Amino acid sequence: MIKAAIVVVGSEILRGVVQDTNSHWLASRLTELGFEVARIVVVPDDYESVEWAVRSSLEIADVVVTTGGLGFTEDDITVPAVARALGLELQLSQEAVEYIRRRVGGEPTYQLKAAYVPKGGKPLYNPAGVSPGVYLRICGKHVFMLPGVPIELKAVFENEVVQILETIPGRRHVKRVEVLTLHEKEAEVDHLLKPLREKFKNVYFKTHASKPVKLSIIVVASTQSELESLMGKVLEDLKQSIRVQSIEL
Amino acid sequence: MIKAAIVVVGSEILRGVVQDTNSHWLASRLTELGFEVARIVVVPDDYESVEWAVRSSLEIADVVVTTGGLGFTEDDITVPAVARALGLELQLSQEAVEYIRRRVGGEPTYQLKAAYVPKGGKPLYNPAGVSPGVYLRICGKHVFMLPGVPIELKAVFENEVVQILETIPGRRHVKRVEVLTLHEKEAEVDHLLKPLREKFKNVYFKTHASKPVKLSIIVVASTQSELESLMGKVLEDLKQSIRVQSIEL
Repeated sequence: MIKAAIVVVGSEILRGVVQDTNSHWLASRLTELGFEVARIVVVPDDYESVEWAVRSSLEIADVVVTTGGLGFTEDDITVPAVARALGLELQLSQEAVEYIRRRVGGEPTYQLKAAYVPKGGKPLYNPAGVSPGVYLRICGKHVFMLPGVPIELKAVFENEVVQILETIPGRRHVKRVEVLTLHEKEAEVDHLLKPLREKFKNVYFKTHASKPVKLSIIVVASTQSELESLMGKVLEDLKQSIRVQSIEL
Repeated sequence: MIKAAIVVVGSEILRGVVQDTNSHWLASRLTELGFEVARIVVVPDDYESVEWAVRSSLEIADVVVTTGGLGFTEDDITVPAVARALGLELQLSQEAVEYIRRRVGGEPTYQLKAAYVPKGGKPLYNPAGVSPGVYLRICGKHVFMLPGVPIELKAVFENEVVQILETIPGRRHVKRVEVLTLHEKEAEVDHLLKPLREKFKNVYFKTHASKPVKLSIIVVASTQSELESLMGKVLEDLKQSIRVQSIEL
């Protein structure tokens, strides 16, 4: 599977001032789109930390998505830090200026800061805010810099990022199923799952410590028909191993 | 300030199946206790990823707190992975066996897996679950392995970890204040804060994109009286720069 990494930029999260919900949303969407999220990193708003986060993420992932640090305030340094991490110069993007103009309804002043992108980068229109996202294709890898305000992150992702991600070959078809069991002990379900885990090596079974125990199953395949056939087999075996109350497809 | 790093272990978080709330809680508590949280990393339940997370965290932090992967299921590998990352052997801890016995009300069977700690490690009693946490002092650094179930994490942290953290010298006194302004634009508040940021270099000002704009301030000092005096000065200057609706101390 193609690996993805998420980089969350924001000292406010590390200081416990703000709960990050963006990485959860991104992890869920990237999984649905057929990527394997291999790591999430949260770093403060400083150059060195963001540079480390981007470089170390690119070592293990083909797709890196950053969120946060795209605004006009002093501590918004994600784009220049990514540029520095990759040895790229910053350039004023006329496309970004036009995007910002459209959002502020006039000539940008202090917002112009958000119109600089690393050389080779493409701005991504932000229909829910002012700062555009940035997309960068480098060394066969894909880097997306997205806003940190959740509504803006989601808008840019759905409107601009998804269509780029869908062009990346090698993604898998993914289906997630939630199972409510009739068992009370997580360790028991885990024990009963052992043969299934061995038989279906690439299927992900996650027991939850709830009463009764819930189970999330994620099946991954190269084609839709393979996916459905595999899911059918998994559920058939599951019903013979575990007492099941309901299955939410 | 003494740096801390948080390592969250759990493939379920990377697959978007579970929203991690532990890192937010830990970041807030560690900040209150006078540490600077320098990084949060979320990695899947595999040896290589956990080993990387622990080793790279120890490069920048004196205190590393892991959460998740302490149970008895197959994918609970945090303790052996940390041992491997640090080149330590695993040993059965009689103290841990006793802790588990107390919680299960009899002799441990499959739960015995949770009684192994890296050589030199000390089990931490878990008053809300079965798996003990583990504390390891190595090369002058402090590694805590804590459960992933939020109620267990909090119980072990408050009952066992805080008293150890409080022995670490060099921690700072910390005070966080929430300010509700009368301004509507985050960028405006940010602009007005510029002289304060320059004057009070070690004070953290975080504007929130709410209407009206909210502001979090974190002041750090070596002693309690220094802290209070500094906070007084900051708030005095703040009220002269920004229109303030209320201050929550």
